[in-house]
Amino acid sequence: MATRRLELWYEFASTYSYLSVMRVEKVAAAARLEVAWRPFLLGPIFRAQGWNDSPFNLYEAKGRYMWRDVERLAAGYGLPFRRPSLFPRNGLSAARIALLAEPEGWCADWTRAVFSAEFAHDREIGDTAILSGLLETLGQDPGAVLVRAESDSNKAALRAQTERAQQLGIFGAPSFVVDGELYWGNDRLGDAVAKAALG
Amino acid sequence: MATRRLELWYEFASTYSYLSVMRVEKVAAAARLEVAWRPFLLGPIFRAQGWNDSPFNLYEAKGRYMWRDVERLAAGYGLPFRRPSLFPRNGLSAARIALLAEPEGWCADWTRAVFSAEFAHDREIGDTAILSGLLETLGQDPGAVLVRAESDSNKAALRAQTERAQQLGIFGAPSFVVDGELYWGNDRLGDAVAKAALG
Repeated sequence: MATRRLELWYEFASTYSYLSVMRVEKVAAAARLEVAWRPFLLGPIFRAQGWNDSPFNLYEAKGRYMWRDVERLAAGYGLPFRRPSLFPRNGLSAARIALLAEPEGWCADWTRAVFSAEFAHDREIGDTAILSGLLETLGQDPGAVLVRAESDSNKAALRAQTERAQQLGIFGAPSFVVDGELYWGNDRLGDAVAKAALG
Repeated sequence: MATRRLELWYEFASTYSYLSVMRVEKVAAAARLEVAWRPFLLGPIFRAQGWNDSPFNLYEAKGRYMWRDVERLAAGYGLPFRRPSLFPRNGLSAARIALLAEPEGWCADWTRAVFSAEFAHDREIGDTAILSGLLETLGQDPGAVLVRAESDSNKAALRAQTERAQQLGIFGAPSFVVDGELYWGNDRLGDAVAKAALG
């Protein structure tokens, strides 16, 4: 029997993506599912619907709620969380690297390393020096990876991945896709896993 | 020991409110909680953040997702659901009646009757004739109730209730409030119940 797949679509600037990224492998493994890591950019999707900033900054009550909610959810999952001094951070370079890492098998480790730096340690993930340090801890050559990540073909690949997200109907992160069914939000990881495991 | 309370804040036009309204008593009873029914209006809250329509109409991908999501959630809960021919419907009169019914002990029945009419049978809940019919099925005198519902004091009471929602940080429906903690969305009924039951 082929291993069934759970697609996790995530954006590096997204707080609720952090909550799913850090839990997904354990939850998926318990259901014998393979996680397909799908980094994409929310920025172009938000801009297309007229937002030039995170909705959590644009809508004050929504933002206030989100910070409290993420804090208590993280506590419930036993995940460290520190409210970042800047939000949202620029996840473009991190996403380009993640896309590169995916077929090479180190996307999951990279993704967790970046999200931990951002939401547990308040590091500036838009800064190349920070990303280089994280690449080193994973045993990657930062210079070589960054050159490949910023190549025209890899930039185009991330644009294509974001267009694919839009074609799938994705409008927020994290989102899960299982057999063409879309589930939006960290809250729905369980539903997506049930769908993937039970068909 | 005093019975602990779960506040359910809901808007009659809201699809996800339907999903919570129809389940909440059973879920709350299993945890020995009392439900406090809190009808309010999302319209003024949405207008205050620049929306003149439901976000599900304003944002196409979000809307497409919502209809599919509500359909599959309703199926999972064993709830009938028919996509309304008009969305959102005007829940103002229904909310005024609900507010009146709350201290009189028939708010839960009223709320379920209206939501069933709207989302299981595609009835126009903004129409006084429809509301009168529903009032009759509950053994209420439609004429008398409608006069009381449309009184200046009851109108003011619903405005005050909506202002209270805003003060609590509510920006969408359904929302649950337990000991000052806010939980937004049908997805979070379980978390709200756990908080209310366990403190």
